[in-house]
Amino acid sequence: MAYTAKGTSFDRDMNYIPDRITREPGLSQDKHDDQELTVRTWPAEPGRYRLVAAAACPWANRAIIVRRLLGLEDVISLGLAGPTHDERSWTFDLDPGGVDPVLGYERLQQAYLARYPDYPRGITVPAVVDVASKEVVTNDFPWITHDLFFEWRDHHRPDAPDLWPDAVRDEMDEVMQRIFTELNNGVYRCGFAGSQEAYDAAYDRLWTTMDWLEERLADRRYLMGDAITEADVRLFTTLARFDAVYHGHFKCNRNKLAEMPVLWAYARDLFQTPGFGETIDFDQIKRHYYVVHRDINPTQIVPKGPDPSVWLTPHGRG
Amino acid sequence: MAYTAKGTSFDRDMNYIPDRITREPGLSQDKHDDQELTVRTWPAEPGRYRLVAAAACPWANRAIIVRRLLGLEDVISLGLAGPTHDERSWTFDLDPGGVDPVLGYERLQQAYLARYPDYPRGITVPAVVDVASKEVVTNDFPWITHDLFFEWRDHHRPDAPDLWPDAVRDEMDEVMQRIFTELNNGVYRCGFAGSQEAYDAAYDRLWTTMDWLEERLADRRYLMGDAITEADVRLFTTLARFDAVYHGHFKCNRNKLAEMPVLWAYARDLFQTPGFGETIDFDQIKRHYYVVHRDINPTQIVPKGPDPSVWLTPHGRG
Repeated sequence: MAYTAKGTSFDRDMNYIPDRITREPGLSQDKHDDQELTVRTWPAEPGRYRLVAAAACPWANRAIIVRRLLGLEDVISLGLAGPTHDERSWTFDLDPGGVDPVLGYERLQQAYLARYPDYPRGITVPAVVDVASKEVVTNDFPWITHDLFFEWRDHHRPDAPDLWPDAVRDEMDEVMQRIFTELNNGVYRCGFAGSQEAYDAAYDRLWTTMDWLEERLADRRYLMGDAITEADVRLFTTLARFDAVYHGHFKCNRNKLAEMPVLWAYARDLFQTPGFGETIDFDQIKRHYYVVHRDINPTQIVPKGPDPSVWLTPHGRG
Repeated sequence: MAYTAKGTSFDRDMNYIPDRITREPGLSQDKHDDQELTVRTWPAEPGRYRLVAAAACPWANRAIIVRRLLGLEDVISLGLAGPTHDERSWTFDLDPGGVDPVLGYERLQQAYLARYPDYPRGITVPAVVDVASKEVVTNDFPWITHDLFFEWRDHHRPDAPDLWPDAVRDEMDEVMQRIFTELNNGVYRCGFAGSQEAYDAAYDRLWTTMDWLEERLADRRYLMGDAITEADVRLFTTLARFDAVYHGHFKCNRNKLAEMPVLWAYARDLFQTPGFGETIDFDQIKRHYYVVHRDINPTQIVPKGPDPSVWLTPHGRG
């Protein structure tokens, strides 16, 4: 499988299964344009769904963190695919017998095909699966975390953080949009560039936003002020992978994150906050990128560095 | 051309054309074993030879630096090949018309073939070429710098440094041997490893020696004490390429050099010493490794980072 195409810029396919799980049936407001699949809403029932993620994947990492921050561990179960995958995508190779103990599947693809026998797109994590039917419900990652907050409120732990504060919502949407296009996706745009020109442009965009964040976080502890929000979760999952993978493998190498004093302290502050650092598995992260992207790392050799213990050093913030 | 071979460790071919240029004719002491080619000695005559190097290549970089330190610029001329090359190796693509102005060659290979029509080994820099016959004299890089010092003494500038001080020669030979096997060649052993096991072993060896150097240089300005020697030249050419190439491209990524306080200050101290920094061309260095080693960087995209201006920051040594 090729992740780069000569002469092109990387363009992420953002068409996902657009279903949502909602508190009230039939709710389906503010969803995307150009949906090819019929949107269905599913009821927010404790015990009904399994979140399938992978420690390696930054998009899935968001959902793992949010589920923990909101105390939904007993409400929505978690299945974890292994770090590497083949042409048919993520497998449950970390589970005993290579089978997810709840779904009985060897590969996540089976949940997609159970619902859509001819599913034409990539098999991605995070995915929410209906345990009874074993069918995938949705893989629409920005909405998965959005709905974990807004639609599962009745089941949050009592002191769950307000990850989407109304008072800053408009600005937060802008911040998250910039972080998505320039950073979350921007690192892939660097790594999967099909020409020097596409790479150079992606690199400049990325570092413009890194510098902006370095400045923004200089006088506030979190992106939106004094409290952690969804925006911090979305930034963290990219920063956590920065020095381990994006710096070398994706050539995002103006600096290491560890060389940007503010962002590095901010990233460690989050890493050392319950719900964040314990979801990060640097070995799985490195194995995923360096083994799966054969076209940019044909030897599939996984670097031994960097030393992850630096994430536990004092951050001096707060 | 493949630089990695699956399942193997990298093994540098150390068979070079063993000729030497000497002060007294017929001198040929302490040379290597297993020479397949007849050893000839050539007279040290000012104006007779052209040193062909490339700013990209660490082995050639040694000779460029030593020639400057000893003030041999008017005694031995310098030709520079461009950073990238094809299967037939280094070309003079930076020169007007793509031709070396003294030798009239488009590619260094011509000097090798002029002497050995069936030359069976790699066409490497540095190479010393006899200008009149346009034949290569030697490409035996450790001896080239050795002989620039010992055999060209009559032509050194008056205040040329003593790069091979007698008083520390035995220890210096040991230090240089370790630097050669573990670092100069060790970075290639990481980058060209054909298996995870070979890479892991090479990485551990490399960092053992990096840590040893960090300690050794903590209480002495240069490797052998208060003055620059050949050992420093040999270490410098690898350190100068470390963060730009070896850290990412060769996966030598436990740390950046810039994260090792002593070694980083030492490297900048040398960089800022006349004869060193001005021989370093980071653009050529990056283009060489990232474009030539297609089997480890198939896209041939050259990273924009890191920012080289950090090399000019105060080093605080001496």
